[in-house]
Amino acid sequence: MDTYKFLLDLALILLSTKVLGLVSRKFFMPQVVGALLAGLILGPGVLDVISQTDFINKTAEVGVIVLMYCAGMETDVQELKKSGKASVVIALMGVIIPLAGGYAVAMFFNRPGLIETNAACSVFLQNIFIGVILTATSVSITVEALKELGKLKTRAGNAILGAAVIDDILGIIALTVITSLADSSVKVWVVLLKIAGFFVAVIAAGFLFYQFFTRWSRKSEKGMRRHVIVSFVFCLLMAYMAEDFFGVADITGAYLAGVIISLTIKKDYIMSRFDTLSYLYLSPIFFASIGIKAALPKMSYAVVVFSVILTIVAILTKMAGCGLGAKLCRYDNDQALQIGVGMISRGEVALIVANKGEALGLMDQYLMGPIVIVVIITTIIAPILLKPVFRKG
Amino acid sequence: MDTYKFLLDLALILLSTKVLGLVSRKFFMPQVVGALLAGLILGPGVLDVISQTDFINKTAEVGVIVLMYCAGMETDVQELKKSGKASVVIALMGVIIPLAGGYAVAMFFNRPGLIETNAACSVFLQNIFIGVILTATSVSITVEALKELGKLKTRAGNAILGAAVIDDILGIIALTVITSLADSSVKVWVVLLKIAGFFVAVIAAGFLFYQFFTRWSRKSEKGMRRHVIVSFVFCLLMAYMAEDFFGVADITGAYLAGVIISLTIKKDYIMSRFDTLSYLYLSPIFFASIGIKAALPKMSYAVVVFSVILTIVAILTKMAGCGLGAKLCRYDNDQALQIGVGMISRGEVALIVANKGEALGLMDQYLMGPIVIVVIITTIIAPILLKPVFRKG
Repeated sequence: MDTYKFLLDLALILLSTKVLGLVSRKFFMPQVVGALLAGLILGPGVLDVISQTDFINKTAEVGVIVLMYCAGMETDVQELKKSGKASVVIALMGVIIPLAGGYAVAMFFNRPGLIETNAACSVFLQNIFIGVILTATSVSITVEALKELGKLKTRAGNAILGAAVIDDILGIIALTVITSLADSSVKVWVVLLKIAGFFVAVIAAGFLFYQFFTRWSRKSEKGMRRHVIVSFVFCLLMAYMAEDFFGVADITGAYLAGVIISLTIKKDYIMSRFDTLSYLYLSPIFFASIGIKAALPKMSYAVVVFSVILTIVAILTKMAGCGLGAKLCRYDNDQALQIGVGMISRGEVALIVANKGEALGLMDQYLMGPIVIVVIITTIIAPILLKPVFRKG
Repeated sequence: MDTYKFLLDLALILLSTKVLGLVSRKFFMPQVVGALLAGLILGPGVLDVISQTDFINKTAEVGVIVLMYCAGMETDVQELKKSGKASVVIALMGVIIPLAGGYAVAMFFNRPGLIETNAACSVFLQNIFIGVILTATSVSITVEALKELGKLKTRAGNAILGAAVIDDILGIIALTVITSLADSSVKVWVVLLKIAGFFVAVIAAGFLFYQFFTRWSRKSEKGMRRHVIVSFVFCLLMAYMAEDFFGVADITGAYLAGVIISLTIKKDYIMSRFDTLSYLYLSPIFFASIGIKAALPKMSYAVVVFSVILTIVAILTKMAGCGLGAKLCRYDNDQALQIGVGMISRGEVALIVANKGEALGLMDQYLMGPIVIVVIITTIIAPILLKPVFRKG
């Protein structure tokens, strides 16, 4: 009975992402690396036991939305204020230089005879998009690695935390802008108006929801199922509204919904519940689905070279950008190096962005391979390099 | 963009099942009644804003599996032993008489000119199947109602609890037998051998998994994500194995996986996590999907009469069967009445069974309407009647 095959798929995805995740951790790497490898192995690239289905794709999409929703809930507005100006400068430099670097690499490779993409958008947008992917720093991976080293509370640690939060927001704005531009039938001023309209709608909806939710949830002291479900409905509606009314990425809506929830008193309770929903069902399917789409072995010689260069550029531009930003804000050389290294890792955010871009025709599906390589290598290298640079400091 | 419509569907399902669930509770009814009504209202029957999709159907299937898995984890083997022989007799009588009653009603209606079904199976199996649906008592609804009345610890309450547990198991065996018989190309002795093989496989897999899991999970004192995920993998594999290797219902496999987990030390931790996964995402989709399939307004005059009579028979046969069983075990008249009334409610189990049967061609889709009516009315009537009969006692 073919109709029940999806149960076996689910079991394989859950088991392999967890086992390889734990193996990753044994080697001092974040578990997400293992989850990606699991998808690569199960997918058409290696074993070919699981292929993309509508069920997996849609569940993965809900998975990304919940992931970004959780990231929004984790956004610490207070921490942001503390590290202040320095974090903004570090994040800005850490976005601009990788953006330029990614664009330059893509511009060199994206031409007839080297890498010919079939993506629907203009070549300029395609190249910029590679830059956008390189801007994303993964907060969770950075924080986890610093926690393990016991260096989260240092001056450099605080700067990284603040910069990572701002980096996240800048990355989402960049994604939003390029997502809107991808639809070539729309004029730029309409796109900008839509984005402005989106933020007005978010502020209005966020304000109203916050008022309603705070008054309503205050009635009972402890967290209740209804609070969690209503907050989920808010997240889904924000995601849907973003895509359907404003042409903005659904994950942007979900992220901002999370930021609004982070301001409410039931935040911790809600976050813990979504954490369970995420790790037990949605996230493994999302991460595995990325691997399943990656199809690594189909890479041509040019794509392999592109992957290697893109990875090197990803590492160097982030280190240079954030290090330079730190120097501008009068951190010493050791701290600037620590901050630069601490920002290297690209995690789920880069994959989410790439995945989104591929769906919109901003990126050819076979470039998912290089992106997965960038994510895997930067994610592995960051915690490995963090140890020596923080010991020295 | 039609591809994002499923986000709106999810939001609507989550919101409406919760709101109507809470409204149900205001009227002293279990929340599942409201969730079913939500599906009916959203579905093609009333508003027609959500239709069946592969994503909803598969997610609903995972939902049923997790629901039955949780029911398995809640099975209290100790409680069963305490109430002992009486519970067995009550449950048996409470299965046999509704089975006969359902069969009789179906036999009368299932003929040309009254209700002509297009189900794939023989008329005999179809009629028996209606009886099988009537056997299922919902433990959760009964327990919840008794808890609210503070009568769970009475002699009658204990008997109901024990009988409900056995009733669940008997119902699952009945479903298993009829599910296997539904495939007409298979000889009966092969079916029986398969069922025997299934139980042998469950015992072997259960024993091995229990040994492995107990040793492995004992290494860490507290519950960990890996324990929850591995137990989920076990549940999914048991469900898949049941369907694919033995032709047994997937929910039977999931239920038995739950019973095995209920014997482990990490049971409470695992149950709490699946509880979250279930209420926050999977269950609302499952209950709503039942309503979405129900298509009430398409009922002909004959189907309406059938619904009314089936509902009356469902109530009277359960009361008569369980009451008689109680009298046989020397309970007094008041207690026998309490037990009979306590067993009336059919809940998610009856819907799960009906849903399963419809998928297998044991029941025509338009008979889902009468079943939903039986479930809604018995679920509403049971807690309403429980109050006066327990006050009197």
